[in-house]
This record gives sequence, C-alpha cells and structure tokens, in this order.
Amino acid sequence: MSKLVASIREAIEKCELRDGMTISFHHHMRNGDYVLNMVLEEIAKMGIKNLTVNASSIFDIHEPIIGHIQNGVVTGLECNYMGAKVGKAISEGVLEKPVIFRSHGGRASDMEKGTSVIDVAFIAAPTADDMGNCTGKLGPSACGSIGYAFADAMNAKKVVVVTDNLVPYPLVGFSIPEVYVDYVVTVDQIGNPAGIVSGTTKITRDPVGLRMANYTAQVIEASGLLRDGFSFQTGAGGATLATAQYVKEKMLAKGIKGSYGMGGITGYMVDMLNEGCFQALLDVQCFDLKAVESIRTNPKHMEVSATQYAGVSGKSAGVDNLDVVLLGATQVDLDFNVNVHTDSNGYIMGGSGGHCDTAAGAKLAIIIAPLTRARLPLVVDRCLCISTPGKTVDVVVTQRGIAVNTKYGKNAELKEKLKAAKLPVVEIEDLKQKAEELAGVPKPVQLGQKVVANVLYRDGTLLDVIHAVR
Amino acid sequence: MSKLVASIREAIEKCELRDGMTISFHHHMRNGDYVLNMVLEEIAKMGIKNLTVNASSIFDIHEPIIGHIQNGVVTGLECNYMGAKVGKAISEGVLEKPVIFRSHGGRASDMEKGTSVIDVAFIAAPTADDMGNCTGKLGPSACGSIGYAFADAMNAKKVVVVTDNLVPYPLVGFSIPEVYVDYVVTVDQIGNPAGIVSGTTKITRDPVGLRMANYTAQVIEASGLLRDGFSFQTGAGGATLATAQYVKEKMLAKGIKGSYGMGGITGYMVDMLNEGCFQALLDVQCFDLKAVESIRTNPKHMEVSATQYAGVSGKSAGVDNLDVVLLGATQVDLDFNVNVHTDSNGYIMGGSGGHCDTAAGAKLAIIIAPLTRARLPLVVDRCLCISTPGKTVDVVVTQRGIAVNTKYGKNAELKEKLKAAKLPVVEIEDLKQKAEELAGVPKPVQLGQKVVANVLYRDGTLLDVIHAVR
Repeated sequence: MSKLVASIREAIEKCELRDGMTISFHHHMRNGDYVLNMVLEEIAKMGIKNLTVNASSIFDIHEPIIGHIQNGVVTGLECNYMGAKVGKAISEGVLEKPVIFRSHGGRASDMEKGTSVIDVAFIAAPTADDMGNCTGKLGPSACGSIGYAFADAMNAKKVVVVTDNLVPYPLVGFSIPEVYVDYVVTVDQIGNPAGIVSGTTKITRDPVGLRMANYTAQVIEASGLLRDGFSFQTGAGGATLATAQYVKEKMLAKGIKGSYGMGGITGYMVDMLNEGCFQALLDVQCFDLKAVESIRTNPKHMEVSATQYAGVSGKSAGVDNLDVVLLGATQVDLDFNVNVHTDSNGYIMGGSGGHCDTAAGAKLAIIIAPLTRARLPLVVDRCLCISTPGKTVDVVVTQRGIAVNTKYGKNAELKEKLKAAKLPVVEIEDLKQKAEELAGVPKPVQLGQKVVANVLYRDGTLLDVIHAVR
Repeated sequence: MSKLVASIREAIEKCELRDGMTISFHHHMRNGDYVLNMVLEEIAKMGIKNLTVNASSIFDIHEPIIGHIQNGVVTGLECNYMGAKVGKAISEGVLEKPVIFRSHGGRASDMEKGTSVIDVAFIAAPTADDMGNCTGKLGPSACGSIGYAFADAMNAKKVVVVTDNLVPYPLVGFSIPEVYVDYVVTVDQIGNPAGIVSGTTKITRDPVGLRMANYTAQVIEASGLLRDGFSFQTGAGGATLATAQYVKEKMLAKGIKGSYGMGGITGYMVDMLNEGCFQALLDVQCFDLKAVESIRTNPKHMEVSATQYAGVSGKSAGVDNLDVVLLGATQVDLDFNVNVHTDSNGYIMGGSGGHCDTAAGAKLAIIIAPLTRARLPLVVDRCLCISTPGKTVDVVVTQRGIAVNTKYGKNAELKEKLKAAKLPVVEIEDLKQKAEELAGVPKPVQLGQKVVANVLYRDGTLLDVIHAVR
C-alpha cells in the first residue's frame, strides 16, 4: 500500500477538487515557500475556479496569487498574516470578497470547531514517507517545526503531503502521522530554506532600537516576573531580539532558571535554552536555520501545534501560562488597541499571527515600537485596524517613554513598580503628543468604502474590518 | 494557571461524573495497574452507580471490579482483552448486560467515529506536568508507549491525568499534549512496573514450542516475504518469540534489512532493531522493561497511537503495510476462524487485542498454537467464539503440521511454496483429526442461553456473541 501519486495534478484530481472549494497551506517555508504557487499554478491550468485559499500566512513570494485572483481562480482568501506585496493589491481592491484574517490560534481553533472547513490541505513537508508520515526537521528543505500544519492535517477532508525528500516507510521522527494523510507527491523542491529567515531576525544596532530594548528589559525586571519559572515569547524584530539579549544577561547574572520560551523561535531563543535560561522551548515555527538545527537535535526544543501554542479550542494552550510577550505595532491608539495589519496609510502589510493570542494569554504583554515611522506617529486617536484589543495590552515602550495601560482596571501596581525603577513612565496621551511634536499631526487617512478584510479575533468573532485605500 | 486538583475525588467531582456515564482507562501498566481500581473505589465511596467502564484491557489485578459490578457501581463493561479472573465471573453471568469486546484498532476508531462515547477518561501517566502534558517514557512507573490512551484523551468529554511523577511545566518529551487534558491529580503510585511484564515474554524452551517456531520461521522464509523492507509483528507468547529469534538469525545471516517491527513490543524486537533487522519500531504498548528503556532512548523506537497502529478511522494504519504477523489461538475451526476470547470450555480468558486488526492488515497472518491444550484439541468444527474471521487468516502452524488457508480463493501459491520447502503441509481437517487422535473427540461444550459478551469487529459491526457457561 502506498499513497504516492505521480504529480500535483494527480493529487488534485484524486482529491476531486472542484470549483468553489477551500484549499489550505501552511507557511513554515515562509518567504522561501514554493508549494502554494506550484499548486495554484496547476489548479489554474486545470481550469478550476472560484477557490478559497486559506494559507496560514501569505509572503511576498506568493505574489503570483494576485494573478490567480484576477483570473477568477482564487475568489476567497483567508490568512493570519499577509506581506506587503499581496497586501497592497488587496488594499487596492483586487479581491471582491473581503479577506478573512485570523490569529494563529484562532485559525487552528476555527478548523477544530468546524467554523473553518478545508476541503483539501496541501502540506509542504521537508521529509515524508509514502504513507504520509512527515516532518519539517529533516531533509534539504528542512524548516523545523510544522506546527501550523497540524490543524490542517487533522481537520481537512483531504490531505496532500508535498515533499522533496521521500524516505522509506516508516519515517523515523514523524511529526504528522499517516492517519491524516490521503496522498503523497514528490516535487523537485518545496522551497528555498534561505527564505525561512525573516528579514528582521538580527539584533538591532540602531541606537533607538537599543534604547527601547534597554527600557523593555528593565520593565520586565521591574515587573517582578523575571524569576525562576519565567516564561517568555519574543518576535523576530531587531528591538525585541535586543531585549531578549538583555533579558538573557540579567537571567544569567542572577542565576534565574526560566520555564519556557515560546513562539516563532529564533537562534537567540536557542542560545537562551542552551545557556540554561529555559528548561524547554515550545516551537510552532522556526524563524531561522539555527532554530531548525536546534529542534532537530535538542529534545528540549519541542514542536507544538498551533492549538497547543495559542488556540482556544483545546483545554489549554502555551499562551495561557506565558509571563511576558514582546510584540510590535504599526499603530497604538489611546485605548491601547494595536494595529499590526496595516501601515499608517492603511495598506495591509502584516497580520496578527500570534499577536492577539499571546497578548490575551500573557501576564505582561509589551508593545515595543519607535514613536514615529516614516514621519508618521505611532500613537493615534484610533487605529486604522484593531488587530489586538487594548484590554489585553499592558505596556507600550517607545524610545521616548513608556505608557502603562491602566485603562481597564489593571496594572496600577505595575505602573508604580516601573516608576519606582525610575523608568520614564508617561501616559499614552503624552506619547501621542511627543510623536506629533516629532512628526507633526498627520493628515487623517482617507480610506475607501469597500471592506477588503474582516479581522476575526481568536475566538472567531469579528474584531474589526479593513477598508480599501483610495 | 494549573489543572492540578487535590485528589481523585475532586477530579471526579469537577468532571461532574454522574450515574449512567461511561468512563475509560488504558492498560499500559498491564497487570501492574493501580489506577482503575483506585478510581472505581473512589467512585463507589461517592455513591455513583450504573457506570460503564471502557478499559482497553482488563487484567487479573482488576479483580475488584467484580465487587463493583455486584454492587451496581459498574453495570456496563467494554474492553479489548479480559484476563481469566474477571473473565470467569463474566462467563458465569455476574454482569447483566453483555460485555462489549472490541479490537485495539476498533476501540480507538469507534471513539473517533463517535459510536463509542466516553464521558470521563482517566489516563495513568508515569510522568506529567500540571497542565496535563504527559508521557509513559519517564518516571518511576514508566511503561513506555501510552499509545492506547491517545484516543481516550482526544475524544473523551473530560480527561483526567493521574500521575505519580509530577514535573515542572512544560514536560520535555510529552506524548499527549495539554490541549486534551482537563485535570491532573497526583497519587503515591499509579502502578507497579514489574506488572507490565506479561507472563509470556520469554522464549519457550518447550520442544513443542520450538518445533512450531522452527516451522513458522520456515513458513515466513518460504513465503518470499523475508526480503529487504520486511515488516513484522509478534506477540509475547513463548513460541512466537522463539520464531522471532529464528527470523532474526535468518535476517542477519542473509543481510536482510527490514522495514519495521510493530505491536506490543518486547525486548526481542528491540534486539532486532538494534542489530539492524529493522529501521524502526512502531510501538503501541511495551510488553517488558527492556522495551520501555528502548522507547525512552532510541528515536527509531517510536510511539504510535492505537489509530496509527491498527485503526480503521484514520486514512491508513501500520497494519495496512504489515508483511507478517504471528498470532495465537485457543481454537481454530475448519473455516479458519480463530478464537482468542474463550478457552475450550467457553470461559472468557482473553480477547482480540490487535489480533483481528493485524490479521486483516498483514499479507501473511500466521496462527501458531499447539495441537492440543489441557487434553482438548485446537481445531474444532466451529469456534466457541469467532475473534478473527477465517478469511483474514492465512496459515495455521502446529507441531504436527501446517494448514494453509485456501478456502477463500487465496494462498494457492503460498501452499505450493511451503510444499516445495518440504514443510509438513496438511489440510485443516487433518489437523483436527490428529488433535482428536491425541486428545480424543471432545464432548460438545454446553453453554447457557445468556449472552455475556458481544464481540465487535474492528469496523464496529457485530462479529459474534459469547454465551454464559453452565
């Protein structure tokens, strides 16, 4: 018995993919992924139309999807993150139906709850056997964790594993077991591992970034959470990585033994694991090749599914026990709502990913962002898009001051602790004023009537909408 | 956040267990398991009645369940295997409702299909953290694989992890993730690991057993299946282990590189892995402590769920690619049906386990059994219970001859191959006659009218019933 088929086309045919169905993809190959484009190209050739694509993230490499939208092959798009290239086209109205944005936890949970139905899932698998057991840890295109693909595999009606490294059955060290897989197809290359590395996985050398990082590390220390058992998530931005570096130094200096690091994992978190700052890493995706190497070789570096990372459909998730998460923002408003979906001009260039999931779960959710970007202020009256509700955000750190969110009946004690630590605590309104002093009061952004995206919260409810640019 | 509760009673209360519900247990602690008895004792004290117990297997250590049946605490019993002590009581009619017997694959699949609904699952976990991540590989009561517990964890409405080795969150090397677990409770001891070792995990020295093993190894060789890529399951019986030894010698002598060994795993299969006969083991339960040590330390020795091992609800299972399985029997009838549920007098003392699953999946399902037991013949006109349908059985090996099953339009070629290898091929009717020459023609067994058990096939359909003894 074997599930091997000769081509992507044969897999699509055997899955009986038809007009109007929904197909899904995961994004662990990140900007190096070839599978989404390959599959859509084949589908286009086959004349199938009116598909919805649910991809955990859309990167710039997926720009060809714009053509498929224009040709009617793709008429629905759902994702947790969208890079600027496709984002621009969406913001300009290329797609008739609104995009559905979810969070990483929400996407998996909506599949598990049955509110997001996938007809055919395509799993880009760096190594697989002919029955569909597969892993991201091995093979020439190794990407490490394939945590976002678990929900697709477990819930889609049909599942196709696409691999460029077929090994004899049974694959030793499978992540996704054969029980979920219908067909296996081999291709020359599922992607370019060099594209896994996001553009922002180096510690910043910019003095503004370093100052923010320094403040943030002090906020964490002053909060009292930096003690044995500390759990921590960073993103891959330069300032958050610099913060991680400072936090590591504090932990090592004081002999603090943390519990776990989580999230998209970078080599910096791997260093913290190896230097004893954490007992484990919970890894839903690898942000660089050092993380890929670590998850392959270190049992303490564990792959987790999106549900286990951040979902609401399971009985708990890693985010529920998180102490501190460091997050970015393009805009923060006076209610501490955060926008990570659009830039300040309203163009889509991001998405929640795990932003709102971790903010909701963490004891201390810290936004780190420079006070202005491209001469536009960070802090505004009302975000163009609410990606993460203000009530789940605790602190905003900028290079010119730190605002503690006491607007929802919490964090009064934290605010006093930060003041006592002589940190530059200000009000969010002060940050807005400072930003406007630097950058001027921005002209109100004029957006179109058309709704180009619906932003769902992690529980599946509508959080906000995104309007077309004019 | 923590899921830790103070006692089994508190866990039961929080799960809102009520009269008439169904609770489940897995059997990896085998005859050393304390958890089933502990939980039932607490439930009895709480005055809850009329429960159905779905335990993957019932061993002699679970004898106290008889008292709970007599007291009305337990009024339904479902399992895949039942040891002789409880089996005797059931055969004598202690339980009003028929027991439901399933196979290991069928039990998991019935849960996944929703035809077997579990209200509260109790997972005996040799190591766990306070959020319910757990494993059988670590801890003082390590049992290795907990593959049968996956379906319970994933499908029960409420899941309680019972452990005697609580470790800091997050447990490194979890098997079952926290997403499925509601409560965690610690007890002094979940069981006695010495009880994991089944009574029959030593190679036989009995000349009859050795002769059968020798024949069986020759059958495997003559079948042509003993080539590179060979996959193999043995049980833990003395003659099957001796066969494994002979097969190993043949593989090593010829330099044959097998694919996988599967099943309940013994130290003998571990040796075969370590000596290069297999590239991997797929382990749904460990039969001895050498297997426990191996699954903890050797990545090639992999834990699989019951669904991945033998289910019909997944898109494939390990049994689907199995070349050869060695199985036992208490009775074989002239249609090659096999009984492993009752002895020749009709007393329940076993069950399918993976018997019918592997027979259905394997290319070559071999029954190994002595021609007589306790002066009763193996081969009978009609089995007292059909545990495995004859159409899935290929060969019956006894010390006095080998019967090839050609009754269902298959195995003609195999029969010729065995004859060409000068093996003592006879008809099943010949085996019956020889057995009766040795043991005499048995008196027909007189059973009662009452049905004490329904035997379900792996697909959930009724395969046979078991009548009470008189």
